[in-house]
Amino acid sequence: MGVVSIGLPSALERMAKDMDILFDTWLKVPSDTRARLYEGMRHAAIGGGKRLRPMLVVAASEIFNVDHDSAMRAGFAVECIHVYSLIHDDLPCMDDDDLRRGKPTVHKAFDEATAVLAGDCLLALAFEILGDEATHNDPFVRAELMAALARASGPAGMAGGQMMDLVAEHQQLDLPAVTRLQQLKTGALIGFCLEAACIMGRVPHEHRMHLRGYARDLGLAFQIADDLLDVEGDEGATGKRVGKDARAGKATFVSLVGVDRARQQAQMLVDQAIDHLHSFGEEAEMLRAIARYSIERSN
Amino acid sequence: MGVVSIGLPSALERMAKDMDILFDTWLKVPSDTRARLYEGMRHAAIGGGKRLRPMLVVAASEIFNVDHDSAMRAGFAVECIHVYSLIHDDLPCMDDDDLRRGKPTVHKAFDEATAVLAGDCLLALAFEILGDEATHNDPFVRAELMAALARASGPAGMAGGQMMDLVAEHQQLDLPAVTRLQQLKTGALIGFCLEAACIMGRVPHEHRMHLRGYARDLGLAFQIADDLLDVEGDEGATGKRVGKDARAGKATFVSLVGVDRARQQAQMLVDQAIDHLHSFGEEAEMLRAIARYSIERSN
Repeated sequence: MGVVSIGLPSALERMAKDMDILFDTWLKVPSDTRARLYEGMRHAAIGGGKRLRPMLVVAASEIFNVDHDSAMRAGFAVECIHVYSLIHDDLPCMDDDDLRRGKPTVHKAFDEATAVLAGDCLLALAFEILGDEATHNDPFVRAELMAALARASGPAGMAGGQMMDLVAEHQQLDLPAVTRLQQLKTGALIGFCLEAACIMGRVPHEHRMHLRGYARDLGLAFQIADDLLDVEGDEGATGKRVGKDARAGKATFVSLVGVDRARQQAQMLVDQAIDHLHSFGEEAEMLRAIARYSIERSN
Repeated sequence: MGVVSIGLPSALERMAKDMDILFDTWLKVPSDTRARLYEGMRHAAIGGGKRLRPMLVVAASEIFNVDHDSAMRAGFAVECIHVYSLIHDDLPCMDDDDLRRGKPTVHKAFDEATAVLAGDCLLALAFEILGDEATHNDPFVRAELMAALARASGPAGMAGGQMMDLVAEHQQLDLPAVTRLQQLKTGALIGFCLEAACIMGRVPHEHRMHLRGYARDLGLAFQIADDLLDVEGDEGATGKRVGKDARAGKATFVSLVGVDRARQQAQMLVDQAIDHLHSFGEEAEMLRAIARYSIERSN
């Protein structure tokens, strides 16, 4: 049964279980002194998270009849990158967070060295997963997936965006600068989720353009919703500290245009994202649901 | 002109220049706030290092008539991983080093956040390079290279070894434990250098076994030489602090068996490494020279 035929909440619930199983399988704790490293990875990876990125990969893959197992493994690789980025972003030298997904962050529960290495390992693991023949039988597809994920994660993508974010604590960014920052920091990896489906589905250029537009708008809407949650959210629901951006004096969509206009802007981006899906008909229903969910969620 | 036809010192000198050019090309500083990130990577990557790992890839690739550009790019990817590992290993929460290759470490010259991100980016960059069609025209080869590099870098390889090394500061390891640690920490990436040549050269299983044996012995010899340099070396020549292991109370080959037996052991490993090359004849002369150099070097 595909994810399109069940509702998004059920699909996300199932995805959360499947991701936990995959992390559990790939991160079996060895009986030597690397145990602490694996425990650090498991602490961050298992039992939490919205699993929205793998959901995006799987939902888009179904439009193009991509094999479900391939889509799941590509989604798993993205989730490895996402979890690695959370571990490193939470480090004292970065955003210095002690709470994530309702639990102590890895450097709090373990130590900083374990957190650095656990992040490094999840980054490498993502490529090990994509490189495995079980992910896709066509080596061209595997190579394309890995190259695209590397671009989305590196200095021209997510990590570059995190650098911009760190530098931004000492400057006052304007709206175009915040947009550009977030397009790298959160947008690049969300973009990869849709790109991965296109690579695996050998999707023609025109369709790719539509999904790229969807990813761009969704990414920004998602980020504005995050900024709103940091202002209005509840620590119990979000599982992380709120009010961080304001304390850090960070320019966000909300600090720049206010809560009301930020909410309008997010809604407009969701509508725009959904418009990009026009040519896919009913097959894209789950992607539409994800777009709506991106701004309605409470965590 | 292949590297076999010139001596190792000239070949290493040329490799150092070529690697600097590649890093300079791939790490052009952008005109936005990511500049600091790129400068951090350039600081660590350009103008230093023995470039022994790319030399290994190129020397082994020549035996199997692998295209020189492909070998250089695979070597460049390995060097990206090597530099990333140095940046992260030097962090205050890891080995806490302030000097590397005769210069302040990245977290000293910049800051810890830049060091963490610069390492992350070089790790991702390695896969971007290998995934690029210009590295090899066969996608199967590209996919194999990336999967093998991911395994060598991650928890079952280099990063796993670094975790063992950190834990070892609180325990007294014996010789088999130190050997196992170093097989992961330095051996896995050296093993990949030879494996990369085999993947690109579509080398039959039997030859791979010989080169795997060479890599295993070379890796340990190289590490013992490093331990000896930490005891007997000169800070000016090594470009890093010496006497660190003893101060940290770390068990090394040298602390466990003494200087003289460690030197004998390293020589024996080099002889053994060279024995593995028997079937390759003169074509493997550069790999023999690298093995001899691994214990004769002063940095």
